[in-house]
Amino acid sequence: MTPVERLRARIERLGAPLCLGIDPHPDQLPVGLPRDADGLETFARGLVEAAAPEAAAIKVNVAFFEAFGSRGWAALERLRADIPADHVLILDAKRGDVSSTAERYAAGLLGHLGADGVTLSPYLGEDAVEPFRAFGDRLLYILARTSNPSAPTFQELGVHGGAHLSELVARWVTERWPHPEVGLVVGATAPHELATLRRAVPEPAFLVPGVGAQGGDLAAAVRACHGTRAPGLVNVSRGIAGASSEADWRGAAAEAARSWRSRMAEAGATLAG
Amino acid sequence: MTPVERLRARIERLGAPLCLGIDPHPDQLPVGLPRDADGLETFARGLVEAAAPEAAAIKVNVAFFEAFGSRGWAALERLRADIPADHVLILDAKRGDVSSTAERYAAGLLGHLGADGVTLSPYLGEDAVEPFRAFGDRLLYILARTSNPSAPTFQELGVHGGAHLSELVARWVTERWPHPEVGLVVGATAPHELATLRRAVPEPAFLVPGVGAQGGDLAAAVRACHGTRAPGLVNVSRGIAGASSEADWRGAAAEAARSWRSRMAEAGATLAG
Repeated sequence: MTPVERLRARIERLGAPLCLGIDPHPDQLPVGLPRDADGLETFARGLVEAAAPEAAAIKVNVAFFEAFGSRGWAALERLRADIPADHVLILDAKRGDVSSTAERYAAGLLGHLGADGVTLSPYLGEDAVEPFRAFGDRLLYILARTSNPSAPTFQELGVHGGAHLSELVARWVTERWPHPEVGLVVGATAPHELATLRRAVPEPAFLVPGVGAQGGDLAAAVRACHGTRAPGLVNVSRGIAGASSEADWRGAAAEAARSWRSRMAEAGATLAG
Repeated sequence: MTPVERLRARIERLGAPLCLGIDPHPDQLPVGLPRDADGLETFARGLVEAAAPEAAAIKVNVAFFEAFGSRGWAALERLRADIPADHVLILDAKRGDVSSTAERYAAGLLGHLGADGVTLSPYLGEDAVEPFRAFGDRLLYILARTSNPSAPTFQELGVHGGAHLSELVARWVTERWPHPEVGLVVGATAPHELATLRRAVPEPAFLVPGVGAQGGDLAAAVRACHGTRAPGLVNVSRGIAGASSEADWRGAAAEAARSWRSRMAEAGATLAG
């Protein structure tokens, strides 16, 4: 099965497009865990064990491991080996470089670590994406509209007849790679932009961050994940990882994941109805 | 001494803004070196020993180490420890993420690895830069116009009254961080764009890739590095690293570095005269 097929099967089985985001800051680790690469690994593995049964995909943010250098990368390698085989692993890396360099990033993230997908930045154009396409059917999510406060600085710049840069990026991705495995990152913190982009490009799958701690709009996020050529994903990180910082964090994360899945399933059922 | 002061002292002593670029593909390693993280480390260390005496700065491209996962990062950590203290080390990483994630990238690249500078991507706006500014006086080079063939896709988009996106990025950097340690990446492969950007923003330092193997314009690159509030840098990677793939590679790299320094010094003398 390709990553798209595994993702589709898993979302249908769960009835919800929940993506479990793993990006814990060492200062936010639960009590009793060391604030180093070992603590990060214990926490990340515990989150996967607790919450993966409710999640369609797992998105690991590379930065939180890279912060600890080679020890962090070794932890990421071990974590990768423990991801359940029916889940897709997306590495949130936002890499973007000239082709000879992008080829090396692809070798590391898709080759060495064997991720099922990555996030990529569009600023360098197609050169930054094609080396990842060379791995065939892996999921690629290209940044269109990110969830952070300063996203509008460039992403909402008016270009060509008044459209925002984010919309041009979305149209470019859709036209250049009209494949189910190539999608877009579009944050839930700007529901108007999310809806505008969904109308502009109805086909590609969206990976939607920003619900939960960042305050994004869950119903809008779930709506943006319906009816696309590959299923979309709504990511929740701190809303699950931060459910408890006490000794009961595993159970709290499992409970939070069940709750998020249930809320997403309800929002989806409303749409279907 | 701050990184800017060390860079200025070194460029004045050498009379040339040569930046030694370390980004060797395993397939391009000299004969006799294993095509793995060990081979990469031996080659990178040999290049630094051979060519650093002619170089004002050393730019290491993180991707070529990241490709080998934790073993590559361990090699990068050892290499970092061997960079001569009077040289600045720039990690070419092109990271760009939301602030909580950018803070972790900064912790890894500027904290854990102790780099004197990094390259950053502008797509997410100021959130992606500020956590690196929190490290104070480190050199930050933000991508404006890259040296790759598809750079124009977005970087030459017309925005606000006809200027290219790359020019808007350059003006934004200049206005927001009017500090000598904050500069721009501008490739030498588009000499017209390079000259346009230099006129638009006369003050920030440029880090100029693309001369040598990529065919960029050396005289234009050196010209763009003169008279700025911090000294600019012209990067040469394959032009030094690829000087020989035989057993004499160390000597060939040293000779190539001498030649590049000399050509840059001549181009600079013409400007000064």
